[in-house]
Amino acid sequence: MAEGNRRLKEEKVFKDPVHRYIHIRDELLWDLIGTKEFQRLRRVRQLGTTFLTFHGAEHTRFNHSLGVYEITRRIVEVFEGRPFWKDEERLLTLSAALLHDVGHGPFSHSFEKVFQTDHEYWTREIVMGDTEINTVLRRMGSDFPQKVAEVIEKTYSNKLVTSLISSQIDADRMDYLQRDAFYTGVSYGHFDMERILRVMRPTEDQAVIKYSGMHAVEDYIMSRYQMYWQVYFHPVTRSAEVILSKILQRVKVLYEADYAFLYPPEPFTGFFNGKLSLEQYLELDESVTMYYFQMWQKEEDGILRDLCQRFMNRRLFKYVEFDQHVHINDWLKLLELFKKADMDPDYYLVVDSSSDLPYDFYRPGEEEERIPIHLLMPNDKLRELSRESDVVEAISGKKRTDHKLYYPEEWLYTEGFEEEKKEIRSILKSSKEETAFSGEIEE
Amino acid sequence: MAEGNRRLKEEKVFKDPVHRYIHIRDELLWDLIGTKEFQRLRRVRQLGTTFLTFHGAEHTRFNHSLGVYEITRRIVEVFEGRPFWKDEERLLTLSAALLHDVGHGPFSHSFEKVFQTDHEYWTREIVMGDTEINTVLRRMGSDFPQKVAEVIEKTYSNKLVTSLISSQIDADRMDYLQRDAFYTGVSYGHFDMERILRVMRPTEDQAVIKYSGMHAVEDYIMSRYQMYWQVYFHPVTRSAEVILSKILQRVKVLYEADYAFLYPPEPFTGFFNGKLSLEQYLELDESVTMYYFQMWQKEEDGILRDLCQRFMNRRLFKYVEFDQHVHINDWLKLLELFKKADMDPDYYLVVDSSSDLPYDFYRPGEEEERIPIHLLMPNDKLRELSRESDVVEAISGKKRTDHKLYYPEEWLYTEGFEEEKKEIRSILKSSKEETAFSGEIEE
Amino acid sequence: MAEGNRRLKEEKVFKDPVHRYIHIRDELLWDLIGTKEFQRLRRVRQLGTTFLTFHGAEHTRFNHSLGVYEITRRIVEVFEGRPFWKDEERLLTLSAALLHDVGHGPFSHSFEKVFQTDHEYWTREIVMGDTEINTVLRRMGSDFPQKVAEVIEKTYSNKLVTSLISSQIDADRMDYLQRDAFYTGVSYGHFDMERILRVMRPTEDQAVIKYSGMHAVEDYIMSRYQMYWQVYFHPVTRSAEVILSKILQRVKVLYEADYAFLYPPEPFTGFFNGKLSLEQYLELDESVTMYYFQMWQKEEDGILRDLCQRFMNRRLFKYVEFDQHVHINDWLKLLELFKKADMDPDYYLVVDSSSDLPYDFYRPGEEEERIPIHLLMPNDKLRELSRESDVVEAISGKKRTDHKLYYPEEWLYTEGFEEEKKEIRSILKSSKEETAFSGEIEE
Amino acid sequence: MAEGNRRLKEEKVFKDPVHRYIHIRDELLWDLIGTKEFQRLRRVRQLGTTFLTFHGAEHTRFNHSLGVYEITRRIVEVFEGRPFWKDEERLLTLSAALLHDVGHGPFSHSFEKVFQTDHEYWTREIVMGDTEINTVLRRMGSDFPQKVAEVIEKTYSNKLVTSLISSQIDADRMDYLQRDAFYTGVSYGHFDMERILRVMRPTEDQAVIKYSGMHAVEDYIMSRYQMYWQVYFHPVTRSAEVILSKILQRVKVLYEADYAFLYPPEPFTGFFNGKLSLEQYLELDESVTMYYFQMWQKEEDGILRDLCQRFMNRRLFKYVEFDQHVHINDWLKLLELFKKADMDPDYYLVVDSSSDLPYDFYRPGEEEERIPIHLLMPNDKLRELSRESDVVEAISGKKRTDHKLYYPEEWLYTEGFEEEKKEIRSILKSSKEETAFSGEIEE
Repeated sequence: MAEGNRRLKEEKVFKDPVHRYIHIRDELLWDLIGTKEFQRLRRVRQLGTTFLTFHGAEHTRFNHSLGVYEITRRIVEVFEGRPFWKDEERLLTLSAALLHDVGHGPFSHSFEKVFQTDHEYWTREIVMGDTEINTVLRRMGSDFPQKVAEVIEKTYSNKLVTSLISSQIDADRMDYLQRDAFYTGVSYGHFDMERILRVMRPTEDQAVIKYSGMHAVEDYIMSRYQMYWQVYFHPVTRSAEVILSKILQRVKVLYEADYAFLYPPEPFTGFFNGKLSLEQYLELDESVTMYYFQMWQKEEDGILRDLCQRFMNRRLFKYVEFDQHVHINDWLKLLELFKKADMDPDYYLVVDSSSDLPYDFYRPGEEEERIPIHLLMPNDKLRELSRESDVVEAISGKKRTDHKLYYPEEWLYTEGFEEEKKEIRSILKSSKEETAFSGEIEE
Repeated sequence: MAEGNRRLKEEKVFKDPVHRYIHIRDELLWDLIGTKEFQRLRRVRQLGTTFLTFHGAEHTRFNHSLGVYEITRRIVEVFEGRPFWKDEERLLTLSAALLHDVGHGPFSHSFEKVFQTDHEYWTREIVMGDTEINTVLRRMGSDFPQKVAEVIEKTYSNKLVTSLISSQIDADRMDYLQRDAFYTGVSYGHFDMERILRVMRPTEDQAVIKYSGMHAVEDYIMSRYQMYWQVYFHPVTRSAEVILSKILQRVKVLYEADYAFLYPPEPFTGFFNGKLSLEQYLELDESVTMYYFQMWQKEEDGILRDLCQRFMNRRLFKYVEFDQHVHINDWLKLLELFKKADMDPDYYLVVDSSSDLPYDFYRPGEEEERIPIHLLMPNDKLRELSRESDVVEAISGKKRTDHKLYYPEEWLYTEGFEEEKKEIRSILKSSKEETAFSGEIEE
Repeated sequence: MAEGNRRLKEEKVFKDPVHRYIHIRDELLWDLIGTKEFQRLRRVRQLGTTFLTFHGAEHTRFNHSLGVYEITRRIVEVFEGRPFWKDEERLLTLSAALLHDVGHGPFSHSFEKVFQTDHEYWTREIVMGDTEINTVLRRMGSDFPQKVAEVIEKTYSNKLVTSLISSQIDADRMDYLQRDAFYTGVSYGHFDMERILRVMRPTEDQAVIKYSGMHAVEDYIMSRYQMYWQVYFHPVTRSAEVILSKILQRVKVLYEADYAFLYPPEPFTGFFNGKLSLEQYLELDESVTMYYFQMWQKEEDGILRDLCQRFMNRRLFKYVEFDQHVHINDWLKLLELFKKADMDPDYYLVVDSSSDLPYDFYRPGEEEERIPIHLLMPNDKLRELSRESDVVEAISGKKRTDHKLYYPEEWLYTEGFEEEKKEIRSILKSSKEETAFSGEIEE
Repeated sequence: MAEGNRRLKEEKVFKDPVHRYIHIRDELLWDLIGTKEFQRLRRVRQLGTTFLTFHGAEHTRFNHSLGVYEITRRIVEVFEGRPFWKDEERLLTLSAALLHDVGHGPFSHSFEKVFQTDHEYWTREIVMGDTEINTVLRRMGSDFPQKVAEVIEKTYSNKLVTSLISSQIDADRMDYLQRDAFYTGVSYGHFDMERILRVMRPTEDQAVIKYSGMHAVEDYIMSRYQMYWQVYFHPVTRSAEVILSKILQRVKVLYEADYAFLYPPEPFTGFFNGKLSLEQYLELDESVTMYYFQMWQKEEDGILRDLCQRFMNRRLFKYVEFDQHVHINDWLKLLELFKKADMDPDYYLVVDSSSDLPYDFYRPGEEEERIPIHLLMPNDKLRELSRESDVVEAISGKKRTDHKLYYPEEWLYTEGFEEEKKEIRSILKSSKEETAFSGEIEE
């Protein structure tokens, strides 16, 4: 099988601000990077709307995918020659690492929510379909694309291989925590990856961590915990996401109502009628999406126009904590008041929920199984992390959920419907002082 | 005049990965950042096509503009209360710092070259025209926009103020060197800015550097020198720029020839006929540009289609050094051979030149005057930097120019016109081994 | 009172690798740094024997004291002009910050344990006694030294002032965590101090943290937790400390037995007879101590000679976990066997215990009161940190203790008393694989 | 020969703040580090008196020696399997790298100047003599110590091996530039070592740099240039060195005059009578030296006492530029005035000169030959660096020399000999404003 690959005459390197250098030694990997489906990831941001909160976070999935590849490469280097590790899985592992996110579209989170699509489906399509990536992969054998797809989907027979890319301490998470911290500029997200890589060991069905590295892993779990609440679920990012989702929802509604668009949503129609081809999907990136948002600022439909202007010019919604500050009766009352004031609550009074499970061990029968992190003890037995670590135990299995109610604050101070607006303001008032003012990071 | 501004109740901060925090204390600055013309800078990359060489360089001019503001803010803090510094210039200086790049369009360098436009003109239009920025600035007095424009254009009467934003050691350069180094991940670009700020002093017509800080300034000049040749003039970046320029050139040619576009270049037409309105200009960002490049991959015109595919999928031109390796007769011969082989040399055989003057002192009568850096000696006299520093003297006034010839390497190995291609290859051959293979950073 | 101080004509700066620059603007502080009692701190390592585990940790208390001063200076800058903060306390606060460790002697931890002395006593002596420091302080008023001593001893009436230097989140801890992480090279110890300083607020009796900064504080608490177990209680460091303590103990025993030293322990005698003058105390630094250890390698007494050779040449004791692996009967047995084999267990079979309380809130009536960290909530009420933070709650009040048994491993494989050694080895054996081999950081 | 070495069962690592981890895989190297002669380097500072200027610079030669070993190990890893590199030289190269500084004594620079000794002589003695190091080395063969000595002395037959440790771009320089920058906290000293290592190639008689890495080498040369003048020749460091030399000189004079020392300079006598044994030399470290300086503050001899107090309490000499500001007649006049004022100019009016040659290429017949740096061009020819690099050419071969006159400034303002002091002050006056005040870094 290895005949499909050749070592490059000279190693190629990419300069990477997070891992310093990314090393490519195999023609297979080099050629995968050169495919148009992989290059397309340059046009999909890694963190969606986060750049509207943290201006540094303008990096793309291209950037991140190279990072995941590089970390995996380093892990494989540590594993080489050790029991349980099969060196003939090397290229498969590296290919899967590089391609694991290749199915992501623009602002995936919002698109997936509104259109019930999912990037995992598209990843398989890209790997198995009529693409440059598939052509390159097939050089390794006709079943190679299938294997790559399986590793990414976690159905591959060798669980050790999948665990490098999808587990609670995998190359994907290790890259994004560091990378997102780097680009946002936050202080969290740092942990001693070099140490973790040094103490990682292969076992039959997963990579485990030598006991002596437990503290480095604790630090990694804490980084993750902090990044979730400080960056990934930042309320301002979610405000932008709410608006983005509402734009997509509005376009669909208008399309189905045969609204006469000045700029018809050509590349989106596949989503509306459920007949999206792979070719169409690949054409749709964030530049295309932003082009339409730009143009739709000139549409006649007031809601679409307004939402697009909000998104492009960063006139985001404000929020109040939902549970604590708004009771259910208030909620019903607000709905009614918005309607009365001629403001469609479907688009302008939106509840958004986030929840995180920073670390969890396996509980049979649960919906979403998460492979726990195991420590390799001095006596060669395995022990689940939270049984050894107080800190991890403390946050283990604790789901934290947070609900926020988003609305257009500045509208409440405009002319018209003063009565209703006054009442709305008074309902929202109590929580006023707890909300960030105009969007940038709270202090 | 200060009545137009209010101190913010609580300071706002932006998390910035380069300067850690960007501090906003004035309502004026806060409101300028919130205008749609300033927010638009989020859709214009700081380094144009550089992201195709250094994948980390995906940052935008929004990012950089905040950085220039922040450095200027820190300089002004050092100057406060010192002779020559007038505190009533503070808001003017900060506004000009923030807005100095606001006229930049998508891939400015290429657009300016092809369409003979220039971002400085558009900056003035945005500051003086019917824009949100102008409205905010006017709160400070009806002549305030004009003053801001003058500072940016270096015609303002108080030369000390302009020197903070436009001189050989200004807030603009100090930000971009550090920022571009940070995002590309190169090791150059570091210098001790904190020290430089501490030793900067106002004089009547420029900011100068205390003699004790000379070594920090040397280090800054060297950073610049390295960044120019390692990043800004990187041959792969220039290859992408060549292709981009050729796309624009082709579109113009086709437009003028009444070619029937599948995707008519609506937002570009103002450039073709010289009647671009401010509104049109502001609509044109990199998302819009990339949208068209994406779509033009489906045009019938072979050259436009090919060039767009090259740009989107990063199938760049290779290059040879022009001076050293290709003689003028060879050049004429190559032109002929390209034509014979049915490959239009106007688009596929392109000379690109870069030149840099890392530091220069004032020579009266020269075309482009560059204010030299002055040291404040212990005896309170000023001395031009290169007279004290061997290192700076060594590179001072030395213009280094570099010419490269770009062409589609892989075409030379395709079928058809084998005879001509063989001859072309043989002319280019001698310099083959000196060219980077497939584009990422040379090793 | 302020007449005793003058602003320096030009600010002085120290280059500091942790805080970049340390800024001195007051003659008072500058002169304190210049006193011989403060300069002496250059000869007392910050982390005692830790340099034998982490070779980078060669930094001194001079280094740290400047850092604590600088952080305090930055806090005071944030506090200036805010309610509760009295600007006339500025110089007192800064002086106490700078001098808080001035009483530390060489390897304080071991000396204090063996000789029942304590550095706090000596700090007061230095501040109040006939010293250069006292002379400088008195320029601020005759009661100024007394006030400085009170702040350091936490008895000063203004609790807000003392809280900056002695609380669970004070300038002392913030400096040492970062500094010790920097010099050892470990990845822990990082937290966003700039953010913490920005959200610190004065209240009547302590500095508190705005709620929006809670995550930065969590990160700080976790850093502390990790540093304790990864650095401060590192088993190899403790091994060196065990040997150091045993040297001191042996010298005292020999001195009391009128042993004829080749190199009489002149500077130590005050400790033996309890009549140590301030002058004698100040003369005793780590150079002096190391000189004697160097020379005592030539003493006739076998135990003193051996222990000094071990310390100087880093031939440390190995260890086993005490609780888990050695039962009380085994312990008694080991004592007997060591004696039989002519190895004095007083010096060669040593139990060392460490325990840490990473964060605790106030529990009235407890021995050692620790002021808890309070958050300033959006509604202006205070809330104790662990009530808001899951992570902190998890580790709050949990004392973790660890006992280790230290002994000379290599002796067990030498000739003589083979029978006894074999039995000793067999008792210690079970835990063998869990101990670090030869001393550097465990992997 | 390799039988004398065994791979360690598990790799050992040292945490290093500069290179992150130092990896030891060979028993030979591990055992060398454990010898008492190598451990002694923990008691010799890397930068002598620099800690009195940059308080962070408290690191020792132990620290640096491990770093040089680690860099060499990484170079050898790059060289493995390449032409010209002989893998059987690996352990020799690594041993020489680790031990290259093992002969350094306390404050080498001053000791060597005053006592005409040199650390290279002692290195050979330690490697070849009756030491633990020699015993360990001999396990590799009876001629192995001799070979190690030859590599360190640059007389070894394989010039490629010696070039790794002693050339203008060797592991020694690459470590100290980075390490000293790290500990002092200055911004200089950074260059892309990872890149340089990647482009280093073995040739027959030296390591060379691939052309593509030229800019990284330029950056390294500039770092060196900056570090020399900003750190290594800092005038305050030199002031401390002047005092230290004068202490040693005074002790020698007193010893030869049979002065009755309260604390006789026992460990130094070998230096005075030229009969220093290896054992005596090894006993003498910086703790021992500092112990005597501490004690000699109580000697009766006024000069010795004063100089020791100055050194211990950092009461350093001030300086004026010698060439520019003091003419030869002034100099003679000053000598006379110092004598008249009862201040011995031999100790209190001292000229100190420093000079640096940041980069030089080979000029046959010159005194100190310096192997130039060669670039490996794309055509496989070698080219000397300064012929390709403008920047290096600019500083190449330029010796910069600097003379300073040191004297006790504060004495000039004390009582007695007012007339003479006034005249001295007036001669020195003109240059007053150019001297740093009290010693910390100039601003």
